[in-house]
Amino acid sequence: MSLARVHNFSISLDGFATGEGLSLEAPFGHAGERLHEWMFATRWWHEMTDRPGGTSGLDDAYVRQFTPGIGAEIMGAGKFGHPGWHGDPQWKGWWGANPPFHTPAFVLTHHPRPSIEMEGGTTFHFLDTSPAEALRTAREAAGGQDVRIGGGPSTIRDFLAAGLIDHMHVVVVPILLGRGVRLWDGLESLEKDYAVEAVSSPSGVTHVTFTRTGR
Amino acid sequence: MSLARVHNFSISLDGFATGEGLSLEAPFGHAGERLHEWMFATRWWHEMTDRPGGTSGLDDAYVRQFTPGIGAEIMGAGKFGHPGWHGDPQWKGWWGANPPFHTPAFVLTHHPRPSIEMEGGTTFHFLDTSPAEALRTAREAAGGQDVRIGGGPSTIRDFLAAGLIDHMHVVVVPILLGRGVRLWDGLESLEKDYAVEAVSSPSGVTHVTFTRTGR
Repeated sequence: MSLARVHNFSISLDGFATGEGLSLEAPFGHAGERLHEWMFATRWWHEMTDRPGGTSGLDDAYVRQFTPGIGAEIMGAGKFGHPGWHGDPQWKGWWGANPPFHTPAFVLTHHPRPSIEMEGGTTFHFLDTSPAEALRTAREAAGGQDVRIGGGPSTIRDFLAAGLIDHMHVVVVPILLGRGVRLWDGLESLEKDYAVEAVSSPSGVTHVTFTRTGR
Repeated sequence: MSLARVHNFSISLDGFATGEGLSLEAPFGHAGERLHEWMFATRWWHEMTDRPGGTSGLDDAYVRQFTPGIGAEIMGAGKFGHPGWHGDPQWKGWWGANPPFHTPAFVLTHHPRPSIEMEGGTTFHFLDTSPAEALRTAREAAGGQDVRIGGGPSTIRDFLAAGLIDHMHVVVVPILLGRGVRLWDGLESLEKDYAVEAVSSPSGVTHVTFTRTGR
């Protein structure tokens, strides 16, 4: 069965997944890269960026579940580009010529455009549709494999609210951003449909996984 | 040196320390006692309530730091009583004849009343003053020992915002309350003044401690 999975989704202790003041120069606003430093320290990240070293402990074990078994990604317009990217016909995402997805990647947007084929197996497709319909489309493209719901926070929240997420890995970083976009708004009693497990890492972050039960 | 300490302060994964709809019948509103079940399971709690048994692991090790070295408590009006308690001249708190404080306990309220001496060493005093001034008063009463800042969330937030907390133990419970009173609002970059440590427990909760640095 093809699952819908969230991986490596980092939030601050006060629940923000991104800061305020997002722009081309500051993709996460005033948060900077502070939510992702735990990831940059891992061996997986070092491998992805062709550098030696990196940690091979708990954080690395979690972070590498990003890729295996995934056949497509769905992301929100706010993950694909800076505010206003849809006014730029040349915009092809933040990730350069060879994005880290290596699968079809479906961008949810009210401003669809023709698909863009990148290097390394990533093709961006643009959909103006509901979460459920987007998931059906992505599942077909995934050829029986799982679909990653890639974020940002509003997109994950929409998929959670629609009951579409089977597995979610959230990483709580011990900083207080104070402002930005929250992950958890409007999800009262979400835990009732999931087995929840929290594991703190020596790096300081806490990995929280939600695994759907009773289906 | 006399420290200001917070202990066993439980919040949901989405940051709420109490629910909505607080009343005499529902002190934590729709949250019920779900934020405190981890504590009720400990040996410390069983001892406090004169029952055998209880867990003696990580949760118990944290929870028992509540008492030693504490010479006074400060609490907000919302911890002392239900909304409207100050209209009831007979109200003496939630805790019966022998409250679990066993020290002077200062209640911050805009409706001060004469002090109330309870059994077991607890005396409630009522102050209409600032956090800093309340802490000075409580420190004097504590005779060189530490002062516990007992909550609720608005009171702890006020003391944090004023830079008055030296040690804080927060317990993150893996449920989503969705609504209520948040602990973290308006505390951007709080972590800069503290060493923060997170430790997950087999019970499912995560203990997060803030220890003030650089003073």
